[in-house]
Order: sequence, then C-alpha cells, then structure tokens
Amino acid sequence: MTIKRETLRKDFPILDRKVNEEPLLYLDNAATLQTPNQVLKKITEFYQKSHANVHRGVYTLAQEATQAYEQVREQVAAFIHAANAHEIVYTRSTTESLNLVASSFGELVVQEGDEILLTIMEHHSNLIPWQQLAKRKKAILKYVPLTVDQTLDVHAFKQQLTEKTKIVALAQTSNVLGVTNPVKKLVELAHQQHAYVVVDAAQTVAHHALDVQDLNVDFLAFSGHKMGAPTGIGVLYGKSELLKAMPPIQFGGEMIENVTKTTATWQPAPWKFEAGTPNIGGVIGLGAAIDYLNHLEMSWIAATEKKLMMHLLPELQKIEGLTIYGPQTVERHEGIVTFNLAHIHPHDVATGLDMLGVEVRAGHHCAQPLMAALGVESTVRASLSFYNSIAEMDRFVYALKMVKEFFNHESE
Amino acid sequence: MTIKRETLRKDFPILDRKVNEEPLLYLDNAATLQTPNQVLKKITEFYQKSHANVHRGVYTLAQEATQAYEQVREQVAAFIHAANAHEIVYTRSTTESLNLVASSFGELVVQEGDEILLTIMEHHSNLIPWQQLAKRKKAILKYVPLTVDQTLDVHAFKQQLTEKTKIVALAQTSNVLGVTNPVKKLVELAHQQHAYVVVDAAQTVAHHALDVQDLNVDFLAFSGHKMGAPTGIGVLYGKSELLKAMPPIQFGGEMIENVTKTTATWQPAPWKFEAGTPNIGGVIGLGAAIDYLNHLEMSWIAATEKKLMMHLLPELQKIEGLTIYGPQTVERHEGIVTFNLAHIHPHDVATGLDMLGVEVRAGHHCAQPLMAALGVESTVRASLSFYNSIAEMDRFVYALKMVKEFFNHESE
Repeated sequence: MTIKRETLRKDFPILDRKVNEEPLLYLDNAATLQTPNQVLKKITEFYQKSHANVHRGVYTLAQEATQAYEQVREQVAAFIHAANAHEIVYTRSTTESLNLVASSFGELVVQEGDEILLTIMEHHSNLIPWQQLAKRKKAILKYVPLTVDQTLDVHAFKQQLTEKTKIVALAQTSNVLGVTNPVKKLVELAHQQHAYVVVDAAQTVAHHALDVQDLNVDFLAFSGHKMGAPTGIGVLYGKSELLKAMPPIQFGGEMIENVTKTTATWQPAPWKFEAGTPNIGGVIGLGAAIDYLNHLEMSWIAATEKKLMMHLLPELQKIEGLTIYGPQTVERHEGIVTFNLAHIHPHDVATGLDMLGVEVRAGHHCAQPLMAALGVESTVRASLSFYNSIAEMDRFVYALKMVKEFFNHESE
Repeated sequence: MTIKRETLRKDFPILDRKVNEEPLLYLDNAATLQTPNQVLKKITEFYQKSHANVHRGVYTLAQEATQAYEQVREQVAAFIHAANAHEIVYTRSTTESLNLVASSFGELVVQEGDEILLTIMEHHSNLIPWQQLAKRKKAILKYVPLTVDQTLDVHAFKQQLTEKTKIVALAQTSNVLGVTNPVKKLVELAHQQHAYVVVDAAQTVAHHALDVQDLNVDFLAFSGHKMGAPTGIGVLYGKSELLKAMPPIQFGGEMIENVTKTTATWQPAPWKFEAGTPNIGGVIGLGAAIDYLNHLEMSWIAATEKKLMMHLLPELQKIEGLTIYGPQTVERHEGIVTFNLAHIHPHDVATGLDMLGVEVRAGHHCAQPLMAALGVESTVRASLSFYNSIAEMDRFVYALKMVKEFFNHESE
C-alpha cells in the first residue's frame, strides 16, 4: 500500500468533483468518511481473485477467503488493542453492534427496577435500544445532563450511579458537541458500582488511537464507513467472558454447532453472533482501511485535525450571530463543530452552503433529546477529516459569511 | 452496461485464475455467485463520485446517494414483480431477512399452541429462527417430510396444515436437493387455512424469474451475493399491510420519526426496519447485479443452466457407487446436484477435486435435519451457474472419476 501524506487527497477522487459547479468541500465526515482508492482496490481484487463464501468449504478458494476474513479480525483487535481477536464481532454498523448488546446482554442482566444510565448527548442508536429494553424490563432509564459549558456533567454522573445501575451506555465522542468524554474515568466509577459500560466509539475510531484494555470498557462499538471502509460493516468489541455469556439473537448458517428438528447448539463467540453469509467484502475493506489509517498514523491524524480546528473555531467565533454548541475551547473539541446562525434556519444554511459546494449536515443529527436539552430543533454541523485543509477551513468560513449575508439581506 | 453472452466469462476475472496449478472450475455457485466486473465498477464509481450517507442531508452529495439507494429499491421491486418499492426491505442477507420475519412478525402472530409448518429440507436459516420462536411461544413446530423420490411430500403438506397453522416457512429451491417446490400451489393451500407463507428464495432468485404477486407469498427473502451483488446485502419482500403491522427490532438513526427521553415513534416501512447507516455500496452493487441479470435475461439463464444439468446428471448417474440425493430426473433439478461416492468421505472427495482445480462443497450444507432424513452426515454438492460450460461439466465428471479411482486404489 502506497500512501503519501503530502498527496493523500489523490487517494480520494471524489474530492476532485464539483457540486453546483463549485469544487466539492466535504465537511460531513462524521456521517461518513470518504473511501480511499486503496480500500476500493483491495475489495475489487478480492472479488476478482479470491471470492468465495467463508467457513464453509474445504477447497482452496474458500480457505483463502476464510483466512482473509479472519486475518482482518486480528487486525481489528490489534487496532483497538483488544486482548484477542475472538473479542471482535463483525456487524453491519455501530447501530447493529449497540442493538446486539442491548438485545442480548441487556436482556440477560437487566431486571425490573434496575437502572440504565445514559448521557443526554447520545445518538439515537445508543438511546432507543436502551429505551426499548427499559420498557420491556420495567427498568429505569436515567440521563446524565450537560454542564453549563455543554460538556458531560461528571459530577452528576457520579451522583446518578447507584448500586442499581446495571448498564452505563455513552458516546466516547459526541457526534453533535464534538467533545470527547473521559471514558477511562467514567468506566472506573461505573465499575465501582458493578455496572457494565457500553461505549459508542463511532466518532472516535478514525480520529484517535483506541485502547479498549486501557479504557477497560466492557463493550465498544464502531462502524467501518466512518474510518474509510465501505458501508455495511461494523464492529462490536466485547470482553471474552461477557460475549461468552451472551445468547445469539440471529440464527442460521455458520453460527451453529449442531441442529436437530427440535434443538440447536451454537459455535463459541464471536461466530455465534455472525449468522449467515457475512459482509465478506466489507471485512476485506475494513482491513484495508485500518492499513490506510495505520500508514498515516493515528497520532498524525489527531494532530492534523486539531490544527484544522484550531484554525476554524476562532474564525467561527468571530461571526456575529453564530452560536456554537458544546465546548467553546479548541482543547475540548474534536473535528466536529455544531452551530446555528441567528434568524436563519439550519436547513437554509446547509442549502446555501451547498450552492457554494460546501457539504455540511443540518438537522437533529439523530440526537433529538440532546437538541431538546440545547433548546433547539436542529443545528448545522461541520465535521472534518485528515484530508481537509486549512484553505478549506477559510473557504468554509467565507462561504458561511456569504450565506449569512444573503439571508440577512433577504429578510431586510 | 456492455454484456455479451458469448464472452461473458471475461466479466468474471476470477474464472481465469488457477487453483493448485489447475484452471479454476468453480462449482460452488449455490454458496456465492461470482461478481461481474460491471458490478465492481459501479460500486467503485459510487465511492469515487457520489459517496455520502443517505436520508440525512439536504446537500447535493447526500441527495445523489439517497436517490441512487432508493432507485435500487424500485429496481428490486420490478425484478421480483412486487406491487411497490415500499415492500422491499434491505437487510444483510437471506438469513437476516428470515430472522426479521420470525422475530417481528412471528412474535406478533404466533401464540401458545399454534403451529409452525416447515419442510425437512430447510436451510438452518429458515429453521432455527422458527425453532427459537416456537420455544419462546410454546408453539408446535412441524416438518413436512420427503417422498420416496426425495422431493417435498405435498400430500403430507396438505395433511399437516391445520387451522392452528399460523406460519408456513419453506425454501423455494432446496440448496441440497436442487428441487424447486410448487410454491404457488402450497401458498394457496396455506392461505385456505389462513396461514402466512414465508419463502426462502436464496437459491431461486439468480436462476429463474420471480413474481411474488403471482406466487402470492406473504414474505420472500434472498441475498445479493447469490446473484452477482457483493456480500452483505439482502432483501426481505413483505406484503405492505404485513410490513405495516410489524414492529422494528433494531433501533437507531434513520428509522425514527420522533424521539424523546422516554418515547420513540417510527418511520413507515420499509425504513423503520433499516436502523443506522445501511450497506449503501452493497445496495448500489445489487442494482448493478440486477442490471446484469436482466441484460442476460432470466429465461436465457434458466435455459443455459438446464442444458448444463441435462449434460451433467446422466454422466454422474453412470458412475458406479455414486448416489445422487434428491430427484433423479433433470426435469426436477435446478443447477444443484448433491451426491456421495461409496466408501469415500465427502471431504476427501472435495479435497481430491480441489487438487484438480475443481471447487465443490462438502458438508451438511447448513441442513442437518435434512441430512438426518437422508441418513447421511454429509454430502458433496456441485452447483452451476450461467458462466459454467459443457466442457466444464465433462472436466468435473472426469475429475470425479480420477478422485474415485485414487481413493479406491488407496483402500485396496
């Protein structure tokens, strides 16, 4: 794999396209990262050279495919510093990973009257599965609020943890506020109360090195498409003994040991959770994406994105009538910034920016309870990646000022 | 899309590779079809030109991606003659589709003492989800047996259907016996008893034109990877009113209408079943695969595979000590033939064939109850596709004779 930091934009041909006759400026990286050519090439090569179903055949092609599929599991484990590859379950997405934990593990450990502790900044995918579980079990759902500076209220977190808390589910990095929560510390506090901790790392995995053993999380979920892999592949990390205790929730080929007309027994984890033909091509792509990130180095990625935000945030703060949600200091900010412009609907801001080739997200960002806590219906969100440039930050700010001027002029 | 039937093998570069220094002869098409270049090209183009997350953005790129994603839904609906595109749910695979029906619809309609009618030839993916449902609900699981000629016993099917039968789940084409069941007639019989019919069409969809309205099935499931699309994308067809009644079983972004701290409401079908970022690239690939099959024409594909089987089956029947499972006449045979050679373990047969470049499956084919009914532990299975040739059938038979001779000689 050949990657040069200096010329890495060439790995992403989409960045050269035009939108509304303007060069594309892609600032929705929190929704999906663009996919480098190296990943696409690896997937195409797989289908052109070694494509077979996995775990099912004694023949050469099937063995090659199975080996490639299982090697990526080792790679994922190494990437997040899991103790072993059997702690890595392939899923479709972060969402499916979190649903799997709630439906299988949650069903197992949560009883009537137990408490499930979430934060108010959770994405719906780490909120509704727990809401549904609480409803089924007559358990109590609690939310950790924000501080006045719109970060997680760690003091309130401590207070809300009780001996009845069975599960704590939280985002490592908020997809709206751009803030990273002190997961290691929160895990320590939760474990003191014998609660299990489920972490949504969707917004962290492509931006910072992860060490699940150091964090000591019980479960951690992320998606391939947010780290340069294709859509349709995600990961659930779970501690061995917990995965072992969990029943599967999908049934079919590959995940069984023995089946009769009336009974069935399962393979050990992680395979018992991977019923049917998995997204083999997606797994191959995930391996290539990890290669890509490793070649760039996670520390370089983190530093690059921090530089971009150091440039962007103060410029945004200078714009009159622009409200930034979440922390106001670059130290607490990942490459995500969410804001509103006074008197202009977020969808109008996004549409206006789109006319200028700038692609940002507007809406509730799958976090309606957080929107309610912030006192808004929706916001604009710009999210960066390592392939963005300082020049693009300037162009974004300039475009935003133009949009503001256009709408302010309109409403006069 | 340029496709010529005469030169279509060129669309599948993998067919030119060698295995154990012999040209690859791929006969595991029932496990996964190979993927044509046209599909791979379309997917790569998507990632290089229009890749964004779907349903979430007002910006141009997101709208392009959403449009492409929803257009394939229309294409799938047309391909299987569904009444409308909203009856098409994207899943990971046939397995996930069948699990979704069992977990959501099954949970809704099956009560204690009700009956679920399966056939003994079901793949585990259309068996274990029902076994689990029956266990949860204290319902009764019944299996339609085979006739003496190892096809479905339609007479027994009629007898086993009662007014207590709530669900009939069956394969359209057996992945082991190669026989296609008379689905339309069976659906009529089932509907007379007000039972719902769930059809596993995994082994039919790439081989015959499908018309879900003519068959009048309630649900039908299939996988993209068995029809030239990549792995990781499947389809559940369901009648509108049934999908409408079904609760979602995975929760997260995209599938919601409104979320508060304590409540959540859903989008209408099919979106309520598609929580989180879906396999967008896989959907694009599925559309390209349908284009590919349509260009070849399903009637040509069916006729081509029939010709191959007309050539192969009699040749296999001439081999002394070779037992074919399922129907013995080519009329009842799809492009799947399952057999054993006397005194040689199926894995040895497959390994021997692999040494000669011939890739076939050996094992229980995810159908252990069927294996038990056939009185075997495992079998060898060869499965054809439209890119196989008469010459390959001859080579396969020749290789099989060599393997037989080798092992017979060994055991003397």
